[in-house]
Order: sequence, then C-alpha cells, then structure tokens
Amino acid sequence: MKSSINKVKIINDPIYGFITIPNKLIFDLIEHPYFQRLRRITQMGMSNLVYPGAHHTRFHHAVGCMHLMQKAIRVLINKGVEISDDEKNAVCMAILLHDIGHGPYSHALEHSIVEGVSHEAISLLFMKELNKEFKGKLSLAIEIFEGKYPRKFLNQLVSSQLDIDRMDYLKRDSFYTGVAEGNISSERLIDMLNVVEDKLVVEEKGIYSVEKFIVGRRLMYWQVYLHKTSVVAEKMLVNLLARAKHLAQRGVQLPSSKALHYFLYREVDENFDLETLKTFSRLDDYDILSAIKDWISHDDKILSKLSEMIINRKLLKVKINSEPFKEKDIEEIKRQMLKKGWTEEAFTYFLIQDTVENQAYNDKSNKIYLYYKNGDIIDIVKASDQLNIQALTKPVVKHFLCYPKHVKIS
Amino acid sequence: MKSSINKVKIINDPIYGFITIPNKLIFDLIEHPYFQRLRRITQMGMSNLVYPGAHHTRFHHAVGCMHLMQKAIRVLINKGVEISDDEKNAVCMAILLHDIGHGPYSHALEHSIVEGVSHEAISLLFMKELNKEFKGKLSLAIEIFEGKYPRKFLNQLVSSQLDIDRMDYLKRDSFYTGVAEGNISSERLIDMLNVVEDKLVVEEKGIYSVEKFIVGRRLMYWQVYLHKTSVVAEKMLVNLLARAKHLAQRGVQLPSSKALHYFLYREVDENFDLETLKTFSRLDDYDILSAIKDWISHDDKILSKLSEMIINRKLLKVKINSEPFKEKDIEEIKRQMLKKGWTEEAFTYFLIQDTVENQAYNDKSNKIYLYYKNGDIIDIVKASDQLNIQALTKPVVKHFLCYPKHVKIS
Amino acid sequence: MKSSINKVKIINDPIYGFITIPNKLIFDLIEHPYFQRLRRITQMGMSNLVYPGAHHTRFHHAVGCMHLMQKAIRVLINKGVEISDDEKNAVCMAILLHDIGHGPYSHALEHSIVEGVSHEAISLLFMKELNKEFKGKLSLAIEIFEGKYPRKFLNQLVSSQLDIDRMDYLKRDSFYTGVAEGNISSERLIDMLNVVEDKLVVEEKGIYSVEKFIVGRRLMYWQVYLHKTSVVAEKMLVNLLARAKHLAQRGVQLPSSKALHYFLYREVDENFDLETLKTFSRLDDYDILSAIKDWISHDDKILSKLSEMIINRKLLKVKINSEPFKEKDIEEIKRQMLKKGWTEEAFTYFLIQDTVENQAYNDKSNKIYLYYKNGDIIDIVKASDQLNIQALTKPVVKHFLCYPKHVKIS
Amino acid sequence: MKSSINKVKIINDPIYGFITIPNKLIFDLIEHPYFQRLRRITQMGMSNLVYPGAHHTRFHHAVGCMHLMQKAIRVLINKGVEISDDEKNAVCMAILLHDIGHGPYSHALEHSIVEGVSHEAISLLFMKELNKEFKGKLSLAIEIFEGKYPRKFLNQLVSSQLDIDRMDYLKRDSFYTGVAEGNISSERLIDMLNVVEDKLVVEEKGIYSVEKFIVGRRLMYWQVYLHKTSVVAEKMLVNLLARAKHLAQRGVQLPSSKALHYFLYREVDENFDLETLKTFSRLDDYDILSAIKDWISHDDKILSKLSEMIINRKLLKVKINSEPFKEKDIEEIKRQMLKKGWTEEAFTYFLIQDTVENQAYNDKSNKIYLYYKNGDIIDIVKASDQLNIQALTKPVVKHFLCYPKHVKIS
Repeated sequence: MKSSINKVKIINDPIYGFITIPNKLIFDLIEHPYFQRLRRITQMGMSNLVYPGAHHTRFHHAVGCMHLMQKAIRVLINKGVEISDDEKNAVCMAILLHDIGHGPYSHALEHSIVEGVSHEAISLLFMKELNKEFKGKLSLAIEIFEGKYPRKFLNQLVSSQLDIDRMDYLKRDSFYTGVAEGNISSERLIDMLNVVEDKLVVEEKGIYSVEKFIVGRRLMYWQVYLHKTSVVAEKMLVNLLARAKHLAQRGVQLPSSKALHYFLYREVDENFDLETLKTFSRLDDYDILSAIKDWISHDDKILSKLSEMIINRKLLKVKINSEPFKEKDIEEIKRQMLKKGWTEEAFTYFLIQDTVENQAYNDKSNKIYLYYKNGDIIDIVKASDQLNIQALTKPVVKHFLCYPKHVKIS
Repeated sequence: MKSSINKVKIINDPIYGFITIPNKLIFDLIEHPYFQRLRRITQMGMSNLVYPGAHHTRFHHAVGCMHLMQKAIRVLINKGVEISDDEKNAVCMAILLHDIGHGPYSHALEHSIVEGVSHEAISLLFMKELNKEFKGKLSLAIEIFEGKYPRKFLNQLVSSQLDIDRMDYLKRDSFYTGVAEGNISSERLIDMLNVVEDKLVVEEKGIYSVEKFIVGRRLMYWQVYLHKTSVVAEKMLVNLLARAKHLAQRGVQLPSSKALHYFLYREVDENFDLETLKTFSRLDDYDILSAIKDWISHDDKILSKLSEMIINRKLLKVKINSEPFKEKDIEEIKRQMLKKGWTEEAFTYFLIQDTVENQAYNDKSNKIYLYYKNGDIIDIVKASDQLNIQALTKPVVKHFLCYPKHVKIS
Repeated sequence: MKSSINKVKIINDPIYGFITIPNKLIFDLIEHPYFQRLRRITQMGMSNLVYPGAHHTRFHHAVGCMHLMQKAIRVLINKGVEISDDEKNAVCMAILLHDIGHGPYSHALEHSIVEGVSHEAISLLFMKELNKEFKGKLSLAIEIFEGKYPRKFLNQLVSSQLDIDRMDYLKRDSFYTGVAEGNISSERLIDMLNVVEDKLVVEEKGIYSVEKFIVGRRLMYWQVYLHKTSVVAEKMLVNLLARAKHLAQRGVQLPSSKALHYFLYREVDENFDLETLKTFSRLDDYDILSAIKDWISHDDKILSKLSEMIINRKLLKVKINSEPFKEKDIEEIKRQMLKKGWTEEAFTYFLIQDTVENQAYNDKSNKIYLYYKNGDIIDIVKASDQLNIQALTKPVVKHFLCYPKHVKIS
Repeated sequence: MKSSINKVKIINDPIYGFITIPNKLIFDLIEHPYFQRLRRITQMGMSNLVYPGAHHTRFHHAVGCMHLMQKAIRVLINKGVEISDDEKNAVCMAILLHDIGHGPYSHALEHSIVEGVSHEAISLLFMKELNKEFKGKLSLAIEIFEGKYPRKFLNQLVSSQLDIDRMDYLKRDSFYTGVAEGNISSERLIDMLNVVEDKLVVEEKGIYSVEKFIVGRRLMYWQVYLHKTSVVAEKMLVNLLARAKHLAQRGVQLPSSKALHYFLYREVDENFDLETLKTFSRLDDYDILSAIKDWISHDDKILSKLSEMIINRKLLKVKINSEPFKEKDIEEIKRQMLKKGWTEEAFTYFLIQDTVENQAYNDKSNKIYLYYKNGDIIDIVKASDQLNIQALTKPVVKHFLCYPKHVKIS
C-alpha cells in the first residue's frame, strides 16, 4: 500500500511548489469521488469571462489550504504551542473539506435550483457521510469545523477574518487572474501567527502584513469578485437557472444530464437525503455549461436567449452607482425594451437591479488581534497607527443595473 | 463603436501582465463564437489529473501568442526589418487563429470520433469560413498560415522550431503546471530574433537562450506532456470515445449533448461541410465530460467502467520501458485478466500497448540558425560549442504498457 | 560608432528583463564618469544591515527609471497624447539624471560633511555641467527637471506623488529587500496613465492600483525606510561623520581618501565651485566605509567607538514611541551612562532623540487625479469609495530614542 | 539573552522569504566580526559591470546556504535518514562558514597580493580560530568541512557536484543578475535528495531536475561568470593589484587603508600567523576600490591608467577564440601599441592572453547518482536517456585576448 501512496503523495502547485500529502487517511479523502468532484468546479465561477486565467478549481484551493495549514501548525508548534497529532490531523482535514459542499457556480445555484441551501450546510453533510465511511476518523475535524471544539484557535484557522481559507484563495485568485494587487504574503503572515490562551493572534511586527492583507482583500473584492462583468454574468446565470427550473416545474422538457435533471425537476431543502447528496456529488460545472449550450436551440425564447448570451459572452450592459437607481430610469428602460419587441415577462430576466456590498474588515465579530512583546493583546483597529484600518470597517454598498445593450439611458 | 472596444481591449494575463488587443478587426475575431469556444477547451487535455493547476485554455494560449507576436514584430521593426501594417496584422491573425480548429481533447478525438481529421485542417476550414464573414480580410493571414507567402519568416514565426506558438505554450504550461524546468525566457528569445533575407535567425548572443529553450522543451515533454499518468489518461479517453462510437454505430442509445451526438452517430472526413463545421464549433470539453459522467450508469460494462475510471481518477497501471514489451508479459496479463472475469473484448480497451516519442531538436528540417556579427549564419547544432545540441537531435522512443491494477507482472 | 553602441545598448535587469538604451546621447551620459559613480552608491544606505539583499545601487535605479519612462511615453503616445521626439528624449534624460547629485549615504552627508546642501541642488549642478560638455543638448531636460517647461505632465512624470521615480524605487526596494508588501504594480499603473490639458491623470479603472500604490508606499516607509535599525544606523553614521568633521576642523589627522579628505577639511555651501563638484564626483560609499574601518583604531574614543559599532553592526538600542520621551527617562539614561564611564561629551553622539515622520498621501499639493470616462477629473481622496485614502493623508510622527545597550529603562 | 536573539533571528531574503537562524551558537557566529565582514564582499566580484543588479554579498549567500541546508536536513530526516542534532548543527555551521576565507575579489587577490593562498585554506584558518573562541563547538563542523567525518553525505552536502553551495549561488546569481537561464529549482532538487549507505543520491524522478541543474550551471558559466566583460575586468584588476604590489615592493608610496597596506608591503604564504589573519579579517571590497580611486592620480602611469579604466568602466577590448591566438596577431598589437606611445612594460599589463575553461559535469570524480525504486544506483551520465549529459562532460576551453581599444586587428 505504501508504495502506491508514494507515487502520488506529492502534488505540484505553481504557487507553493510541492505540496505533500501527509498521511494515508488524508490521501484516501483526496482520492474519494466526493473530493475528486472538486476538480470539475472552478473556484471563481464566471470570473474567467473577465480574467481568462481564472480556471483554477476548488480541488486545487482545498489542497493548497491543507498545505498552508500544515505550515501554520509547524510554525505554532515551533513557538511552543502544544498541538497533538490528532488535532493537527483534524484541523488539516477540516480545512481540506471545508468547501466540499460547493456546487457548480455555487452562488448561482443557491439562488435558483437548490434555493436556500448553503454550501456550508452541504459541506457538513458530506463530512458526516465521509465520517461514516471512514469509521469516525473525522469526528474531531467536524467538531473543529462546527466551532464546537474548546481550543478556539483551531476553528479560527479554518474560519475567521485571518483564516487559512482566505490566505490561500486571495493568493491563488491573485495568481491566476494576474491581478497583482491581491498578492498577499500568506507565508509571511503564517510566520507571525501565535496562540495565546487558545486564541489566534498575530505578533506585533506583523501589523503591516495584516494591513496589507486587509487592503489586498478589499481590492480583490472590488477589482475581481465584484467586477461588474463577473457580477452581471453571475446574475444572468441565476436568472437562466431560475428560468430552467420555472419551465421544468411546468413540465417543459429540458435536455440535461441526469444529475442536473434531478435538481431541476425536484424541490429540495436543506435536509438532503442520501440520494440527493449522492446526486449532488455528481453535479459539477460540466452539467451546467453543457446543458446551457443545448438550451441555445430551445423553443423557450427567454431560456435560449440567456443561454446564447452566456455561451458567446454577449452580456447585458451594466451601470454601477453609489445611490439606488431612479424609478424613472427603470421605466425608460422598460419602454425602450417593449419598443424593441421584448415581452413584459422578459423584464424579470433581462432587467436586473441589485446591490453588491463589501466590508473590508468587520470590527464587530471575530476580530484580528495583535500580540505585543509586553503581553498586550490589541484589536488591529486600535493598534494601527492610523485611521487606515478603521476606515476599512465601513461597509461599502454599490447599486447596479443591467439591461440590454440596445437601451440608451443617460 | 470605439468606446465599446475600449472597455475590453485589455486582457489580464498572469504571465505577461496586460495584453492589448490592437484593433477592431482582431477584437471582432476574438468576440466571434468560433473563437470564444476556445474558452471551453483546455490547453493540456487530461494533464490536470497530474498537474492540478493545468486548467488554462486554448483561448488564453491563443491570446498570449498574439501578444508575443506583437512584441516580435516590434522588435524586428526596431532592428530595421521592413514589415508593413498589413503583414503585421496578418501574422497576428494567423497566430491568433492557428489553433482554432482544436477540438476538445484533440488528440483523443482525432483517434476516435473524428478519426483521421487533424486539427490543423480544421483550423484552416475555420479561417476560410471567417474570411468569408470578414470579407476577405483574412486572406493574407491564411497565405502566411499555409506557408504560401514569399516572406518565409512570417510563417516561421507562426510555425517552426522556434515559433511564437512554442514560446507561449512552453512558458504557459510551465507556469500553470508549476514545473519550473520548462520556464523558458520567451521575451529574451524574442529580443534576439532577427531576419536575414526573409528568414528568421537568432543573434549570436542568443545561443544560450536557444539551448535553454530546446532543453526546456525536452524536459517539458518527458516531465509533463508525456508523463505516464497523462498518457494513460489520454489513451483511456481514446478508448472510451472509440467504444462510444462503436456502440453508436450499432444503434445503441447514448446520452449526450446535441453536438456530441452529431459526431457519434455520423461518419465525417476531412471535408467538413458547413453544418459539420458549425456543429464542431459547438463541441467542447463540456460535452465530453458531461456525457462521460452520464455514461457511468450505462448498461455497456466497458463504456461504464472506462467512464467511471476517468471521472474518479482510478486509472490503469502503467509501465514504461526503453525496449518493446515481451509477448509473454502480454499473455500473462491477459491470463490474469480473464481469471479476474474480464472478457476478451475488454483487452482492446483495458490493455494498452503503445510508444511515445520525442525529438528535442530536429536537425533535418526547419533548423534554427544563429546570426553572427560577421554575417555568418550557422545551424545551432554546429554553432554550439559542445555536443550538447547535437545529442538532442536523436529521437527518443519509450514503450509503455497499461493494464488493470490487480494484475501483477514482474 | 553604431556597432560600439550595439554591444552595450541592452542592460539586464532582474525586475524588467532587458532595458534598452534608446540612443547614443543617453548611452554617452550613462558612460560618463559622473554617472558611472552611481554604481558605487547604494540606493538604500544602511538598510542592508536590516535587509541583507538591499545592495542595489542608484545606477540601477536611474536606469530602471529611464526604462519605465520610455514605457510611459509609449503608452501616452498610443493614447493620442502628442509628445515630440525632443520631449521624449528630454524627459528620459531628466529622470535618468534626477539622482545624479546623491552622495554616499546622502542624508547622513547632508547633516554632516556637506551640511545643508541638498542632493537635488547637486543634481542640478551636475546636469548643468553635463549640459556644457554636451553642448546644450540637455537644456530641455533641465527645464523639465526644474518644472519650468509649460507642459506640466512631463515634470510630473519626473517628480510628483505618482512619478516614475517612486514607481521604480518602491518596486526595486521591495524586490531587493524581499518585503513583498511594497511590491507595487508599476507597469499596470503606467498603463493607466493619461494626460488631460497637459496634466497627468490616472484613468478611472486605475483607482485600486493607485490605492495599492499609496498603501504600499506607506508600508515600505514603516517597514523598511523607517525601520528602527535602519534609522539608528543612519543616525549613528551622521554622528560619526559629524565627529570626524569636528575633529578635522580642529586639525586632528584622519586617515581618509583624497575626496573624503577634501570635504572633511573644508567648509562647503550650496554654490559648489567646479573643483568641489569634481571632487564630489569622486566621493562614494567606498571612501566612507573604508575610512570608517581605519578609524576603528583612531585615538579619539568617540570616533573609534562609533566606527567599530557601525562596521561590526553593534548598534545602539532603540525605543519607539508615539509620544515624546520624558525628560526623566533621558536623565536616567545619562546617569547610567556616566556610571558606566561615558563622558558628558559622549551624550551628543550616543544618546539620540529624534522623530521620524511619514505622510502616505499629501492632499495639499500635487494631488493624484482620476479621469472618468465622462470627462470628470477628481482628486483620488474624493474618488475613493471609502475613507481609506483620506485616512492616509494624516501625517504620522514617531519619536525614537537611542542609547547604549547596557542602559536599562522601563 | 533569548529576547535579544528573538529580535534578529529572522532574516529577510528575496529568494526564500524568511530565513530563520536556528540557535544561539549560529546566531553568535553570524554576529562575529569575521562573519560580518562578508557583508562587505560581493559574491560576484566585477560582474556588476555587466549585470548591474549583481551586488549581493557573500554574507547573503552564506546565510542562504544555511537556510537550504536546514531544509535538506529536514527532508532527509523525514525520509528516515538518521541525523543527530549535533550533526545537523555541525553541517549547518560548515556550510555557513565555507566561504568565510574569501577575500575581496578573491580570484584577483589570489593571483596578486596574497599569491598562491587559496580562499579554502583561509576559510579553514578562520574556522579553527573561531573554534578556539567558541571552545571546541566547531570541531565536528570542521571535520565535515575537511571531509574527514565518516558519514560522507554530510560533506557532500557542503561540497560536491550537487552541493548546497551551488544550489544557492546558481539560484542567487541568476536572481540578482536577471539571467533567467540559470534559475534552477533548488528546493525541488532538495526534495528529491536521499541518502543510501551514507552517500548522497537523487531519487529517480529527479532526473530532469538534475539535468536542468547541470545545463543551468553551464549556461551561467558561459553567460555570466565567464562573460567576456567580467573576465577582462577581473584580469585588469589582477594586473592592477600586481602592479601595486610590484611598486610597493620597490618602496613606492601607495595611498591605501591599513589592512591593504599590510598585504601590499609584506610577503605572505599559506601559513597566516594570527596577526595576518586578523588583518585579513579587516580587508574587504571597500579597501580595494577606495585605494584604486586614489591611485587614479598616482604618478605611476601604469597604475593610474589601470585604475582609471576600472573605475570609469573603460575596459580593454576582448576577443574570444576557440583556438589559441596567432603569434603574428600579438606582434601586430604590440606594433600598434608602441606606435601609439605605450612602453614595452605596458604589454605585461594591457595585453592579456589567457584561457577560460568549464566542464559542465565532471564524470571522473564525485559523480551524481540516481536512486531507483528497485534499489539501483546509477551514475547520472548513464541514467539519462540521451547523450545529453555525456556531451556535457567534455571540458570546453576558450582563448581570449585583451588589448587597448585603439588597436585594430582583423
């Protein structure tokens, strides 16, 4: 058995070089079809329409997280933090599996065909199912993941404002998009982590690295994740899938893979039964895009139009505003659309009003603390010698409006 | 019109930074659905099963090539080579479109469902079709692509042993796989290009860069492109698609997208008619993988087994040898397979014998020439002060043998 | 002549790859001994005591600036800004020579042996002298450098809050120190520059890049340039050179090179005569450090102690405070020093009180403007959707106190 | 004490990120003036005249080596190689100090003012002296350094054809020069090291990395270390120092620092007494360059001319040839020199004939072995599937000839 592990126990990563899979249990989790599915789910959804390099997958992100977590644990142990082998293993599994419940284009799905079911909830379902298969070996990992384990820093490494998840995805997304603004120094940050009374802290000298991290994350939000073209593409995808579900529920025939068919023609809620979970484990980006391509020639005009627009990257026009749009602008758009032959039903799908929001640093919960040589532990907002971080605690909201290209409004 | 170009005329690339689209014609080619399709075709086929970062697409490669070509032309013009605006534009289009005929997992397709039709031939069909749409504006590009234009260096930039295609793909594949060995210095190489009597040459001081390029390419072949896991995955895909075509031609029902259905249930040859070409333009990785996922539950055992193995990355075992494998080893494998319940028909699909071959530098045709200050032009093989390059002219052949994991042979 | 230029007209740069020297005039300026001297002056003074990679020189920075300037001009011309060949050449020369007046450890010198003479003033003297040698060919460059040329953007490219100087030195210093926090995207910023009514602006979409630039610069200040070890080393060097000058003016013999001897034993003011300028052109880091090494064995205890501390990196202890230090702390230090055998005279040299200050963005003069598609031109402070930049306009002052290591204060 | 270590125990490195100093003993060695001297000795001598970024020091290289050695030891221990804490510490000290005996422009010195004394011999003298100061704690390190310790792999890590020294300097020199051709993958190579019967081996899959390493090293030799401008500058420096020593021995007064004076006016041999060693420990690049600058105005024409040429980078012309130069060419050069007013004595200094030589891989001693899964251990020359490596075993010799620029020969 050992030799077969040896063959694959190292994974190449353009960002970290070699990633080592630490043991047989984690190797077997990675080999499991539930996890292999993540190879077919892109990390950044529709963003490759803006950043053509952004085709990296959730598989790669999860494995990268595991790598950084190993480093974090090594750093903490070197600083004298006591971490048992079981805890180490569990926190590595927790981060490896934290996104296993992501469906294809998760946010789109969550607003359409598996409405109201969050990917975190599905991750937990998968972890519990795997725990059965692996005879309880994931119990501690699940406890950490759910925040129930008493040593808080282990959960904070998995999920907090300075967690390993963010450290990997910001670096990885920056790398693959080529948006250098988000290139944070994950390994430097990790070198400055420490634990005081089971809570995660950053050593004093790390203050500038934390500032850069927060600013970098904010820039990635506005420049990449909330880039208007990504946003409009995702909204159109939500509308497209909502239309498909709408038609399916009225009995209209829609070509699709078996897994997608299952979710189009059924109502599901958060309590996935095993069949639903297993079917979900077969659903990935390929089902979605392949179906959309076939829907281009569907009889339903709305479905076919949206499909064609997404596949050939002919997106709606977008306007961004710091204030809500005026009712008279909306009316004007509708007037011009009707004039051009659109139906009223089309308004639901081709005229989109919504907001995007980001708060660079949340100063209300799960704060980042700096740890001074004299023993003081201070919230980063207060430690920073400027108003800088404080300024970043204010949530920023932007309104956007999408509509067909032929429409002209001032 | 201008403003709408402005919005998208810059493309982010993690490798080169910003890529500028030089004009409206090239912008329109990139926007064309034929070209947008390349967004859905990975550059490296199944290699992401070995190198999980390798999900970059032919779209990105083609755009990267266009960028390097612009640089090459700028360098040559600065050195006094006369290149007209029309030539510049044409050679940029030629390199942009040189891979437009690639199907999904091209090499697999070429050996199965579009048997015997090369992607180069299909690229040319697409270019001719686009030339009609664009009213003859691609004529010069096609002439260069086909090697019919008298100024040879333009064709050599598109296709030779030191072409822009290789400069981009080696660098890009090295970047995305994380295999640093192949990280060639494309921009340095381009800085040292020159043209003498309409032929492409490399200036004297570029000798070490060319050596590194040739060695780097060889390392990429053996370490990446011909990596045994990539090879076995691709061979299994060929066999899977061949099985599907075999079943289709016997009238067996196979769930698939419309575009894939067209090619499974029809014989095509190199003379694609317009319908075939248009259907081909709708075929991409998503049709293939989506169908394979559905075929996991197909009644045909061979089809379903191969599908399951590819999707869940349970590949055949591979052995590599510098000599052909012995008949008695093959017989032993068959014996063990039969004993384990495989049918004789399965041999065709699960017992694979083949060779891979690479010649790092071809010293017979289309050589790389060095250009000395005294006017001499010398074949790189003779210019190098060592046997080094000459040693690389010898083709290397390796034999490999794939079979189920349960089989043990010494 | 052409061939001799060809041989050297390309300079390797780890940051930008190849740097091309555009013409014979600029080549001759670079070859001039006044400019070659910059090869022997490090960009970052004593910072290599903290960041051992920081040995890059002002020569390399100046050449890097010239490279970025060429790119900036190319970008602006592509956007339709009219820039004549003479202007292009002049602005390249202006940036190439902007630092030519830097002496070794400039800031230390300016506070000791050439007290009160700024490096900018000396740069201008050198430029005027070179203009004589080159028969007036630098006149336009000097006009731009002095801010007298009517087209303001040319001067802004040389000297403003978003100038080519900063773009190179932040990137270069970040590269050589390894402090990733300062790795700004110079080439992206340049791609977004534009000119409106002869003033430099940044296009709308560059807002995040400008923010990152300002934040990156601030982080470099606090983490690198004002790092306490750099600061204490520089202050000690000021005191050492002041001591040497003090001794020299009392007729004490000090071993030193001819050039350093000249400046130690003479009073100079801003109106360097030609002899002074020529002697200054022979003064570099090597004179200073070589003399300091010899001064270790000098009879003057203060001189020898300071010399030994700098050469062997045994620096004073430093405390940093946001408030001024208390008089009673100073008194306590003096008490302990006297007890340990230090003289009162030593207080001047080994007990240092001072402040460092940085303002990340100056919102009072020479602001950075964003240029919107609708024609609006808005100060970055107002354009940013957060308090972020505004927060960065507040100058931050820190007090520091240096004293011998044996002293203990609470 | 601990806290004072804490402050500096991490060193920033642009190549590896953070370098950690593992313990107090190594920290104290680094702080020692003998070691701090390496901060003032550039790694690449005169090469910065060709590659202006190449100002990194032997200090940085030594610390980088220590970092890679720590990694190598960690990798080997993880593979089950038994290495005691004492051995680990000793091999880290051995690599840290392996270059401590380098003088400024070592090769130039070894051919002039400390003629015939190798830097390895001086390194050993320093190590023995430090061993006295540190009360025998360096004994094992010295044993390893001298190759006397029975476990050979420890010495091989310090000095062999695949040692940590080369892994750091090739990577570092490539990084700082910007010559990407030499950018070897040190960390990948280290990941593939193993030990069999106390001998260092490379695992099978590392074959391509080793090939790239050997080819990369060869390219660095010809493109950088033996670049004709570096070679001519170094030869001129040898001649300059030889001239200075020649004059000194005839009683001519030469301005210089105390340390340089010592070596100019005295004969030394390999048996440095303590005074000589201590004086050597104060000699660095600054003494040399500072003196040369003063010598520009010396009465001796040969000394002053060579000094001026080196400082202002007005080097001799160089010709490279694969065959020895002909006597009649030499005669012609002498004729033209005499005609232009040079004396016969000048021939010794301004007319240089010599050879440079490099053997990419030495197949005679200390070979690199590959370790196969089946237990085989094979010389890399035989393991490689091509003639490639074998071709690199042939030493390449080039002849060069340097002479004043005014001379013209065909």
